[in-house]
Amino acid sequence: MALQMDREALNIFLDRTFPQVAGQVRVQSLDERLLISRLSVDHQHLRPGGTVSGPAMFALADVTIYLAILARIGEVALAVTTNASIDFMRKPEAGRDLLAECRILKLGRVLAVGEVLIHSEGVEDPVARCSMTYSIPPKR
Amino acid sequence: MALQMDREALNIFLDRTFPQVAGQVRVQSLDERLLISRLSVDHQHLRPGGTVSGPAMFALADVTIYLAILARIGEVALAVTTNASIDFMRKPEAGRDLLAECRILKLGRVLAVGEVLIHSEGVEDPVARCSMTYSIPPKR
Amino acid sequence: MALQMDREALNIFLDRTFPQVAGQVRVQSLDERLLISRLSVDHQHLRPGGTVSGPAMFALADVTIYLAILARIGEVALAVTTNASIDFMRKPEAGRDLLAECRILKLGRVLAVGEVLIHSEGVEDPVARCSMTYSIPPKR
Amino acid sequence: MALQMDREALNIFLDRTFPQVAGQVRVQSLDERLLISRLSVDHQHLRPGGTVSGPAMFALADVTIYLAILARIGEVALAVTTNASIDFMRKPEAGRDLLAECRILKLGRVLAVGEVLIHSEGVEDPVARCSMTYSIPPKR
Repeated sequence: MALQMDREALNIFLDRTFPQVAGQVRVQSLDERLLISRLSVDHQHLRPGGTVSGPAMFALADVTIYLAILARIGEVALAVTTNASIDFMRKPEAGRDLLAECRILKLGRVLAVGEVLIHSEGVEDPVARCSMTYSIPPKR
Repeated sequence: MALQMDREALNIFLDRTFPQVAGQVRVQSLDERLLISRLSVDHQHLRPGGTVSGPAMFALADVTIYLAILARIGEVALAVTTNASIDFMRKPEAGRDLLAECRILKLGRVLAVGEVLIHSEGVEDPVARCSMTYSIPPKR
Repeated sequence: MALQMDREALNIFLDRTFPQVAGQVRVQSLDERLLISRLSVDHQHLRPGGTVSGPAMFALADVTIYLAILARIGEVALAVTTNASIDFMRKPEAGRDLLAECRILKLGRVLAVGEVLIHSEGVEDPVARCSMTYSIPPKR
Repeated sequence: MALQMDREALNIFLDRTFPQVAGQVRVQSLDERLLISRLSVDHQHLRPGGTVSGPAMFALADVTIYLAILARIGEVALAVTTNASIDFMRKPEAGRDLLAECRILKLGRVLAVGEVLIHSEGVEDPVARCSMTYSIPPKR
């Protein structure tokens, strides 16, 4: 499916709309098949023991799937998450950024489904897997 | 099942171990059947439009289920979330705290399962439902 | 919310529309808050060891939530499951029927969310928990 | 990870242990990265309208992930599903078999996580996505 927004447009949108994550999450690459985002891990994401917290990984998955949907339908839409399922499989490695690879599996008129695999940078085995459904509001 | 920690002990534990949410999340009531926690909603939890963000509700569910498990097994354990499923059903009402009601459905030797309903205070229909599995480390 | 179909109407609908489960699943009770269905367990639902299989419990949850939605919106609608999450928590007891208690948590214009607790009859601890989202087609 | 069972061994195991699905589900291909199984669709899997039912797709995902785990750890283990999450995204095409592609994302000492994409044969867009956690019993 043709993309409506490129990497730069998504990052500008991100800074403007999600000031909470500005400077932490970046779209790193994007094509019609795959969007990869990066979480620059710092102390605020960490749990005791030095690993990234579950909610920080959930937030990364959420914003990544949201951006991958916007890349396809454009900035106008106000999509909301209706359902999410996440498996935390391994501890992220301390001191490494997280990379989230997102594929959009369905982009319907009303519902979109995306899935994300999260890795510690440079480590092959994934730390988490997440799938989410977004509800897409009707066009005006 | 008999409780190992009471409301006050859980709140002290919360402040010491999760400084990120200190002062935001409190255990409000606790018995053998139900734990209710409160998220004091402020600007950092909000999305454009004045509603609480999905990741903030996920974090509330996560810490609430964690506390309900600790109430039963005591503070020694280092439980980790392995799986979570969450349905976002309605927009939280602007300007109201969120209450999370947690029931523990299973407390096994290795796995525990809890579920949470989240409401805007004073509103009957739930805004979100979440179930999570925690892995409980073996006793030393 | 007022009910559009009663227990008898749902059971007649079930026999007519789901011949695969005819005689196996019955609506046992129904009010505005709770629908309880029963799976008459026989050999076809069993796994080695004498317990009911996961897919048989999934099918029970699916039909139960579907019936609870129809009870509220009437038989005309052709709702489809879009998402399901299920936790298998304990082995069902051999030789006991399963009871599925269903609550509808949301009944929107487009999406409905229901949740089910499944018990072996006469046993307090639940064997499974399931939540599902149904997509409701637009009225013609 | 080295495989302990090949395609033929898995199919023999399937016929012996799951007589309910004998002749319906087959392992079609298998390597260290991917297991693909096939559901020969017939009338018993169908819903009104000619599409495969949700529970039949759940059962296909369940047995496929189970076989992919056994391929890695051998036939001795008695693994059980503890959690599943499934998204039904499109109607399967009438008159086509279903193919289930399974990847094992984690194979721990206690828990394994697998995920499956289900397609109608010859159709690119997936009809369903499923992830499951299996609990692996301790070795004797």
